[in-house]
Amino acid sequence: MDSRTGLPVVGMVGGGQLARMTHQAAIALGQSLRVLAASPDDGAALVVADTMVGHHTDLDALRRFAKDCDVVTFDHEHVPGEHIRALVADGVVVHPGADALRYAQDKAAMRERLSALGVPVPRWRAVASAAEVAEFSASLGGVEVVVKATTGGYDGRGVWVLSDPGEAARLLAGGVPLIVEERVRLRRELAAVVARSPWGQVAAYPVVETAQRDGICVEVLAPAPGLDPDIAVGAQQLAILVASELDVVGLLAVELFEVDDGALLVNELAMRPHNSGHWTIEGARTSQFEQHLRAVLDYPLGETSLTAPAVAMANVLGGPPGGMAIDERLHHLFAADPGARVHLYGKQVRPGRKIGHVTVLGGTMASVRERAARAARWLREGVGD
Amino acid sequence: MDSRTGLPVVGMVGGGQLARMTHQAAIALGQSLRVLAASPDDGAALVVADTMVGHHTDLDALRRFAKDCDVVTFDHEHVPGEHIRALVADGVVVHPGADALRYAQDKAAMRERLSALGVPVPRWRAVASAAEVAEFSASLGGVEVVVKATTGGYDGRGVWVLSDPGEAARLLAGGVPLIVEERVRLRRELAAVVARSPWGQVAAYPVVETAQRDGICVEVLAPAPGLDPDIAVGAQQLAILVASELDVVGLLAVELFEVDDGALLVNELAMRPHNSGHWTIEGARTSQFEQHLRAVLDYPLGETSLTAPAVAMANVLGGPPGGMAIDERLHHLFAADPGARVHLYGKQVRPGRKIGHVTVLGGTMASVRERAARAARWLREGVGD
Repeated sequence: MDSRTGLPVVGMVGGGQLARMTHQAAIALGQSLRVLAASPDDGAALVVADTMVGHHTDLDALRRFAKDCDVVTFDHEHVPGEHIRALVADGVVVHPGADALRYAQDKAAMRERLSALGVPVPRWRAVASAAEVAEFSASLGGVEVVVKATTGGYDGRGVWVLSDPGEAARLLAGGVPLIVEERVRLRRELAAVVARSPWGQVAAYPVVETAQRDGICVEVLAPAPGLDPDIAVGAQQLAILVASELDVVGLLAVELFEVDDGALLVNELAMRPHNSGHWTIEGARTSQFEQHLRAVLDYPLGETSLTAPAVAMANVLGGPPGGMAIDERLHHLFAADPGARVHLYGKQVRPGRKIGHVTVLGGTMASVRERAARAARWLREGVGD
Repeated sequence: MDSRTGLPVVGMVGGGQLARMTHQAAIALGQSLRVLAASPDDGAALVVADTMVGHHTDLDALRRFAKDCDVVTFDHEHVPGEHIRALVADGVVVHPGADALRYAQDKAAMRERLSALGVPVPRWRAVASAAEVAEFSASLGGVEVVVKATTGGYDGRGVWVLSDPGEAARLLAGGVPLIVEERVRLRRELAAVVARSPWGQVAAYPVVETAQRDGICVEVLAPAPGLDPDIAVGAQQLAILVASELDVVGLLAVELFEVDDGALLVNELAMRPHNSGHWTIEGARTSQFEQHLRAVLDYPLGETSLTAPAVAMANVLGGPPGGMAIDERLHHLFAADPGARVHLYGKQVRPGRKIGHVTVLGGTMASVRERAARAARWLREGVGD
């Protein structure tokens, strides 16, 4: 508890854009987020008063950081489970806990557990050799397969579409534990974001459509256009089931494949604010960042309804070097679209790096989608068409 | 310019809730607000990474603070004009400038200037003696009068309704320069908030109704219920005229009396984000805090339209000592109204002190008004009716 304000102190491990945006939400709740950043130049470290620099794999740093926090939570999934358990043994409240977080850290454990719960996932197996990859592919009639690192992948890293099973040998030789799964023929990707409190309250956001390019989320449409209402409710129920069964506290984002017959398969889980929920800052009555704070603090959860009929979010990726300065791009964008809601993360621009996002709200999906995409393109490339 | 981000650095003098909320807006724009706070416990100082502690009347502190800022602006009107001029002489960009800010600092200068522009204000005069107060009252047929400190008043301080003109003698003996004005018979109070950039672009928010209690704003309704559309446009035009003629850069809030025949009189001017604009955080497409940043940075201004048909904001004042802790009150409020948007300022609770506000959006004014008022009452008094 902060003695100056009488309000709780939430510590977030990781100083990226998720911590940066969570700080904005914490400010409204009368709090000041406490952040453990790997570098003083991290996006959150630039703006958060109560920043400590230290690494999330350093247990001593985690212990110093956690002292006086009412609850510790995460901006990423990379804190080792044994460190989380050590903090809990010290008496620190940590949400989500290590037992839940494991399923966001380990793709094999997640797929096993979800299958046991009857939740559909793509057909998969853990593999130790290229022969096993070939065997798996052959057992499914020679379908195309995807090989994924069991742990540590994100934003398209740690995922390989193999043209030849033999390529897996090189990866395995590098010591990367792998799973192989069928390359699902999908209609599109969806995401269901829910929050769950220690008390067990859950709140579900409208299901969204997400689009990836090179494994990085580039666009989110809320609500998912044309989604059958029964399937939407089914996706929310699935996410609530997973959150409850895995004892997730905080946000849970369930990335889903919608396959050609309309069925849903779970692709990934994230237990923190998630790119598929950035649209909620303006597009939902309660942002995912505030919702995550409310959940980990065991506050009653906020309303999740849409604030406009159609919401589109487009990620801003770093463009090629040179050209117009980012500040000048912003001027042009603001002149062209005074209603675009821009979020920049305080990051150095590098090609392909997520440096921000833009959200547009309005009456029709076609219009907000086009505006959001154009805004992101202008910020990436300088003014274009 | 921040070399790490390529984005500008805005310095805000004053570390209160306006700077705190401006920081939230700065984060979205990729910036980190720089704040000069009088105390490390100021609401903004608790959350802003780039805080310097120093007093706004200390020119040396102002100079150190302004160094490397792309523009310096204000969370209050109390910086002496000569200090602002000294900064400008040093080459610092300051918005609003001293010549504009004077009219938000000096009620006599403001009334003179507005009258010269043909903008209606209550009948008034500067007074140097109780006899002049009596003379003024008598000249208007013995109307009730209000005496105001020419400079330095806010939130009801520096305003006295006199039952006897002789009471002015005591105030004048204390060395307070005074004006006297007729106590206007008003229907209600309104506010017109506009932004203006150095380039001269203006953007006007919908006109709102404000309610004061003991001189402190307690409620804002957007848009002002039942306001004749022509009068609303007239109020916006008046605010734009004042902003342009006084060369205001940044936000201008014009507090207005709506008198019984529907005419508008200007009561006060503020040249910064203003309590009558807090509803814009969720209720307008661009918040007043982002708009102020865009204006002082000469970015094109953002869209000002409402995000819901009816928006109500209620200020949370500190309640009597004792009783339920603020954190527990928040739990109860969140359970009772999951859609209420709470903003707490990180302040110690003192009776009558503004410690936060609540905004509610919805379809009908009656409903959002009741919900906002109830939320503010619960946070002030603990759970009640």
